[in-house]
Amino acid sequence: MGRSLYSFLSLFLHLGVFCAWPGGLISKVQGRDLKAKNSLCDVKHFTQKLDHFSFARNDTFRQRYVICQEHWSSGGPLLFYTGNEGDIMLFVNNTGFLFEMAPQLNAMIVFAEHRYYGQSIPFDGKTLNSTTLPWLTSTQALADYNYIIHHLKRTIPGLKQSPVVAVGGSYGGMLAAWMRMKYPATVIGALSSSAPILQFGNQIPCNTFAKIATQDYKMASPVCVDTIRRSWTIMEDFWKDQAGRDWLKDNFRVCQILDDRKVKLADFRLWLFSGWTYMAMTDYPYPTEFLKPMPGWPVKAACQHLSDLCSFKTDRDLLIAVYKGISVYYNYTGQVKDCFNISDSSTGTALGDTQWDYQACSELVMPDCTDGKTDMFYYRPWNISEYNRECHKNFAVKPDPSLAIREYGGRDLVAHSNIIFSNGKLDPWSGGGVIKAPSKRIKVILIDDAAHHLDLRSSHPDDPQSVVYARKKEIAIIKKWIITATNSAEYL
Amino acid sequence: MGRSLYSFLSLFLHLGVFCAWPGGLISKVQGRDLKAKNSLCDVKHFTQKLDHFSFARNDTFRQRYVICQEHWSSGGPLLFYTGNEGDIMLFVNNTGFLFEMAPQLNAMIVFAEHRYYGQSIPFDGKTLNSTTLPWLTSTQALADYNYIIHHLKRTIPGLKQSPVVAVGGSYGGMLAAWMRMKYPATVIGALSSSAPILQFGNQIPCNTFAKIATQDYKMASPVCVDTIRRSWTIMEDFWKDQAGRDWLKDNFRVCQILDDRKVKLADFRLWLFSGWTYMAMTDYPYPTEFLKPMPGWPVKAACQHLSDLCSFKTDRDLLIAVYKGISVYYNYTGQVKDCFNISDSSTGTALGDTQWDYQACSELVMPDCTDGKTDMFYYRPWNISEYNRECHKNFAVKPDPSLAIREYGGRDLVAHSNIIFSNGKLDPWSGGGVIKAPSKRIKVILIDDAAHHLDLRSSHPDDPQSVVYARKKEIAIIKKWIITATNSAEYL
Repeated sequence: MGRSLYSFLSLFLHLGVFCAWPGGLISKVQGRDLKAKNSLCDVKHFTQKLDHFSFARNDTFRQRYVICQEHWSSGGPLLFYTGNEGDIMLFVNNTGFLFEMAPQLNAMIVFAEHRYYGQSIPFDGKTLNSTTLPWLTSTQALADYNYIIHHLKRTIPGLKQSPVVAVGGSYGGMLAAWMRMKYPATVIGALSSSAPILQFGNQIPCNTFAKIATQDYKMASPVCVDTIRRSWTIMEDFWKDQAGRDWLKDNFRVCQILDDRKVKLADFRLWLFSGWTYMAMTDYPYPTEFLKPMPGWPVKAACQHLSDLCSFKTDRDLLIAVYKGISVYYNYTGQVKDCFNISDSSTGTALGDTQWDYQACSELVMPDCTDGKTDMFYYRPWNISEYNRECHKNFAVKPDPSLAIREYGGRDLVAHSNIIFSNGKLDPWSGGGVIKAPSKRIKVILIDDAAHHLDLRSSHPDDPQSVVYARKKEIAIIKKWIITATNSAEYL
Repeated sequence: MGRSLYSFLSLFLHLGVFCAWPGGLISKVQGRDLKAKNSLCDVKHFTQKLDHFSFARNDTFRQRYVICQEHWSSGGPLLFYTGNEGDIMLFVNNTGFLFEMAPQLNAMIVFAEHRYYGQSIPFDGKTLNSTTLPWLTSTQALADYNYIIHHLKRTIPGLKQSPVVAVGGSYGGMLAAWMRMKYPATVIGALSSSAPILQFGNQIPCNTFAKIATQDYKMASPVCVDTIRRSWTIMEDFWKDQAGRDWLKDNFRVCQILDDRKVKLADFRLWLFSGWTYMAMTDYPYPTEFLKPMPGWPVKAACQHLSDLCSFKTDRDLLIAVYKGISVYYNYTGQVKDCFNISDSSTGTALGDTQWDYQACSELVMPDCTDGKTDMFYYRPWNISEYNRECHKNFAVKPDPSLAIREYGGRDLVAHSNIIFSNGKLDPWSGGGVIKAPSKRIKVILIDDAAHHLDLRSSHPDDPQSVVYARKKEIAIIKKWIITATNSAEYL
């Protein structure tokens, strides 16, 4: 199938940028860099079962994991990172908080790669299609993690009685929380950062993500929001004739010809939508080397081009300002010399777009829309029929929009315990997060001035006090779990 | 494959008698009898997914369930029976306690048939073999129950907000407990009666079952235990020559020729072992119509033939006494006119022996042995290699002895809540049950003078006070859960 951006469904774009793990391209972070970061980390493999819930097939695959024992002492806890939808090295190199926690807890760290991503691909990494993909589900991934933990406990001397804490961010944060819900005898608790576990079904309005992103821009500058909102209609007008489209192509430096056959208005808009929301998700206080490099507070930086109403004498002026704003995301260092290929994934190659699209087309259906009124975008309703058609076309699979709620219980978390749900208030995904504790046994941490799982990143001098405090609180809670577990319960 | 009894592995025999649901043959309890019992019960069907955890197949099957609404009023709770390894009608007609609870709670009752049993057989009920059976797992069965409950809530007006309590006995009791553990947003609690969830791996010694059965006989008469224990060696001596085997055949009225080719000593012994332990499991205080009719306190009745040492002048005398004792189980009303077919299932046709053997050969491996020293049986060690060979031969499947502990957490229940584990102290399966509460949120009820899930049966004038009290306590706890749930939590 084509790039996510070319899918009819805008959600795919969302999903493409779903996990905004800051970090270089994957080629930069493997092998040597990993060793440089932590000399006691090793890359290992585990023979994993393809299917944990039936005996129809005996297939196995090699699941990669990274194990770091520098600060661990026998009996000490295991911090287990439940890998997301991408190459595990991306998470190893962008979850600095775990490496800061480890010495304080004498903890071992394990990062497990999610099945079908990175190098942990079943069927010997053969083509990903409707024949090979069907075992790519979160339930199977959780069973993988459970199986690996049991394997580690059985084979590493001194680990048998160790309490295990699941940690993850974004989709990995969902998995960490679900791990605690489904396998509480395996993990004594979970740190679930920026995990929109309520994004399924109709638990929240479908433009919640867009509304929070809009709010971020509004805080930077209300005029900025108005400008962006106006831009979509102007764009639509320009799109009506070839001259207008050519103007857009030239002034936005798009590689492709804009002609409604190859690149539709919807595609062009999604490319912009992606840039705006990506900046909101990763609106960090200091410059970061994402899949694309960005300045600190990128939303503010983008809005600087969009907040001077007087300078927009014509529609063209306004669109040129939009181009400058979006370039903060797509071309901050001027790295794009010639033109923007808007069919490129906006998240680079480290995240598995095809695989994630499959998950979104099967069990993890997250309704997504914008209305252009309560958000700064344009009218783009959630259309389940189109969604189903697209999924059928690409993967011959039928989405089950209620599966995730059925399997994981939706908002009803009252029976669960020992989960920290942390959310940055700037993060558009926080709208699908747990921001109200259902009981005392679940901890909710809301972080001012923080975007998508800032708390899991390494400490930085420019961190807001809120995230410094959040990290301290997280460690304190986890310490308490470990003490309680060590004193009372019986382990594997 | 042959009858369970002919399997090499004695565990199969155990499993054959695993769920001693008292009741007539299935032909007696269907249709009309059900209606007679409760005029507002209906038999319905639900289109169920074959595989809940991958998208490899779209197959579905018709899952049968029985729904009883006589005492239900809108918003009232749902008591959901998590069907075991047999025809659901057997459980409908032998779980009288639910029908006694319903009017007290204004509850609806649903009995769901377990996949692959009774009439809920995938692939249109085609032959059960290694190609059709692989989706017969407890994890899939739990997902079935979860799916049905969501379906009922969506389609029955007034049920949406109703709290659901899972109820089950024996393997059904395991499923009820596991349902609460895996889907706590779906069921607010579980009554798990006589559920040996610790029977897996090496959590308990493999002859625990046999030791408790022995204890039951000892309480009836210590001499009885000695007599039974002596009988195995004598039998072995008799078995050595054809004359001895013929004597056994004639005096135990066995249909088959005993010749070490067709019927081995091991088979003959297992037939007896089955009878003794079956009586211990169902040592109820009043006469019951099981798959075979029995007097009240059958263990005591059997021991009456085995407790007069002076009458055993010869080995033959002792074996004849054994024959009389075992006849309490196999021929209490003299219903066997000609001879005993020891290859018949000892539990009749309502339980699915083949299917259960498959489950025991894949995910639910329960080590089983006897030693003849701490129990009243004979030396029969747990032999995993033989077990694996037999499973491979019959089903081309490899047992995974640690799967159940991995999936359900074994003894580590500290994170769970709202489960009542009830066990009768006479029940040999109670050794694998939860008899010590891991926390205040889990309730343990031990019932004196009670065998396998006596508490789930209808009240009876001869019930011991202990079970009368246990049932009251169970209702009180469930009422409390319902009140708490109704007052606080948010439902599906």
